[in-house]
Amino acid sequence: MDPRQTDPSNLLRVDRDARGVLTLTLQQATRFNVLSADMLQALQRALDQAEQDPGLRVLVLAAEGPAFCAGHDLKAMAQPGLTQADHQALFDQCTRFMNRLQALPVPVVARVQGLATAAGCQLVAQCDLAVASTEARFATSGIRYGLFCATPAVPLSRNLPAKKALEMLFTGDFIGAEEALASGLVNRVAAPEELDAVLATLLNSLLDKPRAALAWGKALFYRQREAGQAAAYQMATQTMAVNMMDPAAQEGALAFLEKRAPVWPLSGE
Amino acid sequence: MDPRQTDPSNLLRVDRDARGVLTLTLQQATRFNVLSADMLQALQRALDQAEQDPGLRVLVLAAEGPAFCAGHDLKAMAQPGLTQADHQALFDQCTRFMNRLQALPVPVVARVQGLATAAGCQLVAQCDLAVASTEARFATSGIRYGLFCATPAVPLSRNLPAKKALEMLFTGDFIGAEEALASGLVNRVAAPEELDAVLATLLNSLLDKPRAALAWGKALFYRQREAGQAAAYQMATQTMAVNMMDPAAQEGALAFLEKRAPVWPLSGE
Amino acid sequence: MDPRQTDPSNLLRVDRDARGVLTLTLQQATRFNVLSADMLQALQRALDQAEQDPGLRVLVLAAEGPAFCAGHDLKAMAQPGLTQADHQALFDQCTRFMNRLQALPVPVVARVQGLATAAGCQLVAQCDLAVASTEARFATSGIRYGLFCATPAVPLSRNLPAKKALEMLFTGDFIGAEEALASGLVNRVAAPEELDAVLATLLNSLLDKPRAALAWGKALFYRQREAGQAAAYQMATQTMAVNMMDPAAQEGALAFLEKRAPVWPLSGE
Repeated sequence: MDPRQTDPSNLLRVDRDARGVLTLTLQQATRFNVLSADMLQALQRALDQAEQDPGLRVLVLAAEGPAFCAGHDLKAMAQPGLTQADHQALFDQCTRFMNRLQALPVPVVARVQGLATAAGCQLVAQCDLAVASTEARFATSGIRYGLFCATPAVPLSRNLPAKKALEMLFTGDFIGAEEALASGLVNRVAAPEELDAVLATLLNSLLDKPRAALAWGKALFYRQREAGQAAAYQMATQTMAVNMMDPAAQEGALAFLEKRAPVWPLSGE
Repeated sequence: MDPRQTDPSNLLRVDRDARGVLTLTLQQATRFNVLSADMLQALQRALDQAEQDPGLRVLVLAAEGPAFCAGHDLKAMAQPGLTQADHQALFDQCTRFMNRLQALPVPVVARVQGLATAAGCQLVAQCDLAVASTEARFATSGIRYGLFCATPAVPLSRNLPAKKALEMLFTGDFIGAEEALASGLVNRVAAPEELDAVLATLLNSLLDKPRAALAWGKALFYRQREAGQAAAYQMATQTMAVNMMDPAAQEGALAFLEKRAPVWPLSGE
Repeated sequence: MDPRQTDPSNLLRVDRDARGVLTLTLQQATRFNVLSADMLQALQRALDQAEQDPGLRVLVLAAEGPAFCAGHDLKAMAQPGLTQADHQALFDQCTRFMNRLQALPVPVVARVQGLATAAGCQLVAQCDLAVASTEARFATSGIRYGLFCATPAVPLSRNLPAKKALEMLFTGDFIGAEEALASGLVNRVAAPEELDAVLATLLNSLLDKPRAALAWGKALFYRQREAGQAAAYQMATQTMAVNMMDPAAQEGALAFLEKRAPVWPLSGE
């Protein structure tokens, strides 16, 4: 895979480093990186490749310009003559993308440098982890234009306290990065010039861990969360027993006992 | 509808302004606005009217005196000779009221000026949004009198972190307004003399949005929250596609593109 | 029951005071109080006794040494020749213990004086309430050794915001006591020399309440949390109606009206 390439659409920059970090950078800054049908297709193509990449370790979603992502393309959606089925098709396309991020067997991290509104705010909530610049701002702003952010409500209500999520959805008001941190929408806030260092620290921590254990863990986390506690514990004990048979876990336990850093076997990657 | 009236019971003041804000003010300050059978009937009557009001935009629950609401009427409940069925009937009556607040197609906002205990604390948790005076205090105090606040536990556990909710339920201890804010029980805290200004700002923001989109959004929010994520996204995409066909959303998208404030069509109201 | 005794294994100290507080103290400080098969058996034996103790009011889980609990016994788990079924049996044993804490009809409080890692961090999350020393630190550190903390993810995801839980699970990084408090993992933080006073205040508050109401309430809390809201309210109204028929609740309501402290009848204990 080329270490760096631009999607044929020119909307997306695709960087894959030697360690397995795949960074998808929305680069349509002049249009605030809206999730147009073309942008969603470019993202889906990138995920098609990512799913075939055996060395993939982490996916980072980043963006250029003043906005991280301004949500759906209202210009395209305002075209006369569109039917309810047309709109449904667009929201379905976007939802497929969101669901694929969760299904991906590696941690997905949002790098939020600017405005994240509507489906752009949803994208941050949908990622497993998120780091944000102090200049980032977040809003589910659809309601300002008469369109309740219903799909953003799905990950918002699973990440934020209920009244906070409802307030954002009902008012469309912005919250700043610190409030996003306090509300559970992001994991870390950093000054713009320190955002990449904070991200790098987080990525290094993720890269330090065996791929298979992260993959089992991510899948288990989301699956057990939808189950009752008894069923959740059953899923979790099975995951752990399978995980313990993995060479990486055996090496990890040994390294722990020998008080040394583990050296992950390739099969555990 | 009269702009201002008092319920025949004299327990409730009913204000409906020209913009569609309906304010129900518990005005039995000397009894700490307990949710007696009479008070619950007055509230139900007010909701009967509210549901018939096509211009209703927001419901505010407010109160007079040192207490917002002190919960159930222990005096009535302590009468000798009451059966389990009698008690069940009372709690069912209260639960019907709570459920109707959530079913109402407009945002419901609590204005908490004082003590909110037991079912009064539940009432705050059950509202979609809440603003509180710095003098407000909150407790699920039933356990102090030997009665675990079981129905308050329902919205508390859906709004607060689990250990915080359990601590309140097990101890009956009060928390202050700032702690309520940090715990997700309220959205805003203000000095008593600024409470109405803070509430007005929030109401203005809600009134600025089209009624239909808020109604679809509120219903979707609570419905999708009880579903698994895949089903939640299906509900949400349908809601958005329906919402997009609404004249208000079409005007909103157009206004966005033309960089002007939207002028909501009446059909979107 | 002896007021104070040591489990035959010597791993656990068992203190039962005259008020009904049962304190189980992990006392294998040199091994960081790992949840070895022997430690889990000692804990299960203590719960067997606790379930037979009609005067039991609160269970406290405490520990000696620098660690509260360092999770599973990696030394035993790293032995060569263990099968997936062997590992499954160990995780099942641990899960049975965790589930019994939740099924116990009295509040369960963790007293966290030091490191709580992996299943030790899970133990804190699984308790109903937790107090922590400022020196306590928390991590789901399994992933550092190639083993994703899948069973800890079950109570973590039910106590902490999603992204915070995922960050801990993916990175294995420590959080301090204040961050644990802000994240919902513990209820109180105190300087080491004040930890017992803070715990005592909490215990006194719990001991002040009638046993039956706490038992009904705890069971209801966890059961209703897994149900939809309508079903949750049905369960809760039934719990309250049953609770109201209890002599303690009748005395409580009377005491409230007479503005005196309630004197709980024995039947309510």
